[in-house]
Amino acid sequence: MSLFKQTTLIGIGLIGSSISRAIKENHLSEKIFVYSRTKKTIQRAKKLNLGNFYTSDLKESVKGSDLIIICSPLSTYGNILKVISNIIMPGAILTDVGSAKLNVIKAFSKLRNINFNILPAHPIAGTEKSGPDAGYSKLFNKRWCVITPMGKNDNKSLIKLKKLWNKFGSKVKIMNAEKHDKILAITSHVPHLISYSIVSSTLNANNKEKSEIIKFSAGGLRDFTRIAASNQEMWKDIFLDNKKNLLKVTKEFEKSLNLLKKYIKNNNQKKLEEIFLKTKKVRKLIEKEKQE
Amino acid sequence: MSLFKQTTLIGIGLIGSSISRAIKENHLSEKIFVYSRTKKTIQRAKKLNLGNFYTSDLKESVKGSDLIIICSPLSTYGNILKVISNIIMPGAILTDVGSAKLNVIKAFSKLRNINFNILPAHPIAGTEKSGPDAGYSKLFNKRWCVITPMGKNDNKSLIKLKKLWNKFGSKVKIMNAEKHDKILAITSHVPHLISYSIVSSTLNANNKEKSEIIKFSAGGLRDFTRIAASNQEMWKDIFLDNKKNLLKVTKEFEKSLNLLKKYIKNNNQKKLEEIFLKTKKVRKLIEKEKQE
Repeated sequence: MSLFKQTTLIGIGLIGSSISRAIKENHLSEKIFVYSRTKKTIQRAKKLNLGNFYTSDLKESVKGSDLIIICSPLSTYGNILKVISNIIMPGAILTDVGSAKLNVIKAFSKLRNINFNILPAHPIAGTEKSGPDAGYSKLFNKRWCVITPMGKNDNKSLIKLKKLWNKFGSKVKIMNAEKHDKILAITSHVPHLISYSIVSSTLNANNKEKSEIIKFSAGGLRDFTRIAASNQEMWKDIFLDNKKNLLKVTKEFEKSLNLLKKYIKNNNQKKLEEIFLKTKKVRKLIEKEKQE
Repeated sequence: MSLFKQTTLIGIGLIGSSISRAIKENHLSEKIFVYSRTKKTIQRAKKLNLGNFYTSDLKESVKGSDLIIICSPLSTYGNILKVISNIIMPGAILTDVGSAKLNVIKAFSKLRNINFNILPAHPIAGTEKSGPDAGYSKLFNKRWCVITPMGKNDNKSLIKLKKLWNKFGSKVKIMNAEKHDKILAITSHVPHLISYSIVSSTLNANNKEKSEIIKFSAGGLRDFTRIAASNQEMWKDIFLDNKKNLLKVTKEFEKSLNLLKKYIKNNNQKKLEEIFLKTKKVRKLIEKEKQE
């Protein structure tokens, strides 16, 4: 018997289509209902055989589902909740995969008289690719999935959702949304903002320079361009949703940058080497965590 | 017949030991003379069988060599040149692998009455690892090597050096040092400075937060920690050597960051998406170059 009877995926991009593939591979839901805003994406999802039913009618997509996963950009949640909250089956699980959680919880909190379980989640996995073709079933393997429970939930639903992510190969961490957003600002949102900034600053180069920048990008820039190729709609939303933490952590980064600049201006070799030795240790800790 | 009779590697870290391995694999030099400042490194190099002779006596190391490659941090060049310039064989090639070239050329230009060929070079390849164990023969494969010729050289020596790098699998680009340093500030030096800054700014977190930062680093930070684990002595030298370009390009980066911050503060969704779409295009160009 499958863990779920019918799963609705609202959005079938990189994450949604990876979930679909992982569900199918592990037989975790009897049926999958795929919703997308655009006909084009629906057609692509059909071709890729990502579900059993396909629709661009939100209401239809959630009817009878015991698991509903929102996999669309954060700015779409408001409308989605308005449309689906009265249709979701009693006892069902409503979850999501959004990268910022405090605003998500605020949006969910506005729902009244609900008799289903709300379990916001965030799988810390992804690539710079987007769209239904970009997904793959092992995307979540050995990665963390953070769940930030809220409101009243029966304990069974949390156990079921954890099981789903464990079956995908993920480790699950329960955390409050506030903390999640603070940590993720450091580990993901500011790194993305900085990557967008550095790649964007190369756009002002003239054409000849640009071609040389591309040629010699292997020395470091290349890694930033990968991050700065992430989906524009999704990241615009994350930055705006987690604005407060983002700007605060960016300020910390700027302090560090200014300090390094000062030491460089003053030829302070000792201080520079000291700092670089410390940053090297962070890498060692990450390698120990075996996330590489 | 080998391309060279005797090659001296001054420094046997990541780059030096990769060159040694690539030379051996391709039979490009009859003998290899390995010099290192420290006895410990010499012993390690011996154990790894990276050369035919080993010494920590600089003078001895260059005697009779027709190819001398400086593979040590930029700040060591001054002393090295003082010691070896009168001993280098007439007609020999003196080259290096330093990541900033204008100061290198200045140091080389101070040499008087020389009768050997000076051909500064910079293979755009590397990893965050250092030391003789970190090298591997394919490090330069499909990577660019920039040569910045200076002074008087017989044309034959440039052809020979190009051939050496081509045999390593590298594409060779002749460029002037000024331009090299400007482009590399953009593609490598500023990305490293920013990576050091962002990882360094996480060091202020308390221990509990730090462990969570490490756990969830897969969302972007992880890539920066790799870059910020690069050799501290080498990078301190690069930053100081290419200080002018570094600070100028950093200012451009800061402008871009400030603009993005402004758009985030003002919820300017349209402008943010516009910029992120443009940065995505840079990635596409890099993927076309097949440097990934």
